[in-house]
Amino acid sequence: MSDHVYWKEGSLYVLDQRLLPFKTTYLKCSTLKDVAGAITDMAVRGAPLIGIVAAYGVVVGMQEKLRSRPHLKESDAEKICRVLKGTRPTAVNLFWALKKMREAYLKFKADPDLIGHLLQAAVEIHQQDTENNKRLSGYGAELIDDGDTILTHCNAGALATGGYGTALGVIRAAVKAGKSIRVIATETRPYFQGARLTAWELMQEHIPATLITDSMAGYFLSRGRINCVIVGADRIAANGDTANKIGTYSLAVLAHENAVPFYVAAPLSTVDTKIESGSDIPIEERKPDEVTTIAGHRIAPDGAVAANPAFDVTPHRYIHAIITEKGIIRKPYNFT
Amino acid sequence: MSDHVYWKEGSLYVLDQRLLPFKTTYLKCSTLKDVAGAITDMAVRGAPLIGIVAAYGVVVGMQEKLRSRPHLKESDAEKICRVLKGTRPTAVNLFWALKKMREAYLKFKADPDLIGHLLQAAVEIHQQDTENNKRLSGYGAELIDDGDTILTHCNAGALATGGYGTALGVIRAAVKAGKSIRVIATETRPYFQGARLTAWELMQEHIPATLITDSMAGYFLSRGRINCVIVGADRIAANGDTANKIGTYSLAVLAHENAVPFYVAAPLSTVDTKIESGSDIPIEERKPDEVTTIAGHRIAPDGAVAANPAFDVTPHRYIHAIITEKGIIRKPYNFT
Repeated sequence: MSDHVYWKEGSLYVLDQRLLPFKTTYLKCSTLKDVAGAITDMAVRGAPLIGIVAAYGVVVGMQEKLRSRPHLKESDAEKICRVLKGTRPTAVNLFWALKKMREAYLKFKADPDLIGHLLQAAVEIHQQDTENNKRLSGYGAELIDDGDTILTHCNAGALATGGYGTALGVIRAAVKAGKSIRVIATETRPYFQGARLTAWELMQEHIPATLITDSMAGYFLSRGRINCVIVGADRIAANGDTANKIGTYSLAVLAHENAVPFYVAAPLSTVDTKIESGSDIPIEERKPDEVTTIAGHRIAPDGAVAANPAFDVTPHRYIHAIITEKGIIRKPYNFT
Repeated sequence: MSDHVYWKEGSLYVLDQRLLPFKTTYLKCSTLKDVAGAITDMAVRGAPLIGIVAAYGVVVGMQEKLRSRPHLKESDAEKICRVLKGTRPTAVNLFWALKKMREAYLKFKADPDLIGHLLQAAVEIHQQDTENNKRLSGYGAELIDDGDTILTHCNAGALATGGYGTALGVIRAAVKAGKSIRVIATETRPYFQGARLTAWELMQEHIPATLITDSMAGYFLSRGRINCVIVGADRIAANGDTANKIGTYSLAVLAHENAVPFYVAAPLSTVDTKIESGSDIPIEERKPDEVTTIAGHRIAPDGAVAANPAFDVTPHRYIHAIITEKGIIRKPYNFT
């Protein structure tokens, strides 16, 4: 499951997640435009994975520059980072990874093997993410009881990260620890990451999962059918307010109303301590046709107006704990 | 908009709502099986409309019997009602309309024009529903302020009723009273009644509407973008607990959490005073492939397990008022 992003013979390869689970197609990214397009168009998605792909994207972009002239300039690195920063606004891991890559550039800019060092930095970000996920999943598994039914939203699995996953990582670790776990997965409109990706990841590992529409979560919560909710995160503010896939806020309110614990599982690279509260997190508004059209099939009348905010913000008061690679953090949230 | 169900030359014609707004196809129902199938398979849907179609279905069924033998028996009426009662379990208007038709049968069973009297009873149920909707919509419009943005779920419009609609009827009446109204319509998975039917009804009347996925409602409520929520109902218990399309409960909780009024608009035929509270309302579980497949296109891996409860129950404590043809009823709910 960690072969969905890799470097081979000077190019980045990413599994096109828009076609999963029906087609397994890899995109070869040899130019900055290829990488930026893969992020913007959601061939790759998931906050940690976006950061990893952007890190490799810096290497791709620098190599591309070297094909047109013999030396790289600091303005090249800046321009490449600017393009990658512009791909998606909400997931902070993107900016975090680009900052790491910029540090690597400044350290090795005079080194004849600058590209090799940049690639090494990207690989380290990638590997570190997988390791962090395994670590946070181990902590998170302690919150799960044998026999629990866990509700999750969107896909915070191996596919959303360097590997192993965050919310699904916690579920994997609980199962590995011998606990019997059932999952209820929301389909996650408009992009169906739950139906397409989470259901697929769980089926591959034989973890029993039931798919529901997003609107059914309240029903299952109100009937006592869910023991806890675990989701990933795209950006966590200093006070614990968490931006995540649209619909997460609703699940948190519904869990709160039904006294069901609500957990966020995310590496610390998702925390943006520069941002005090969730109201400062920019929310991406995507194209309306993701709402009005499914796989080329229209579901609304021609001319219908649609809105498509891709994320929402869950206030920290609804979050019981944030599960990180440094342990479980509880209210009042303090990440420093 | 009231030509979606009519009687012509001895047959019932219903607009096939599964194909709307893309195709306008009428189903001719000449047998009991035709009518029962149209209800079960959701060619017609919406609690009041189900009742109306079932009423006409009694006429269709009795006529069908008369084609095989010259006289009708009480057991014929009973058998026909039993088949129609078995079509869908949650909407109480179905049982209410069949009770009315049974009363008409008992009154006119010795009359040579029994069929004519039964047809007259069905037409009266149909016309009365439209009149009740107009009346309740007038009351409901008083709850709406000029400039309001109203969130609605599923389709509680003309198409869901004999005509004019309940939740959409209130919106229509407010617009007719000169108020400037905007609507936010949830798409309503799994069947997309919001995207297909509500968006279409509102566009036809030039009422500005924005379509969202069900998961986005919390986002708009939390940002102060919605002034009130109005939905229809499939069955209201004596204490005001309301069964309605799956996802309604979530909207009610989210409205409550954000101090936004939540209204139910429904004719009194939707009230089931025999049922004390919502926990006694049977919830229909439909086939999982309505969740895993959209217009023949799979959205989940082969073998994925899905749940498909079609309704949920909103406890009365979340409901600010129930808008009926006899006026606006407020807590504590008392329908007698």
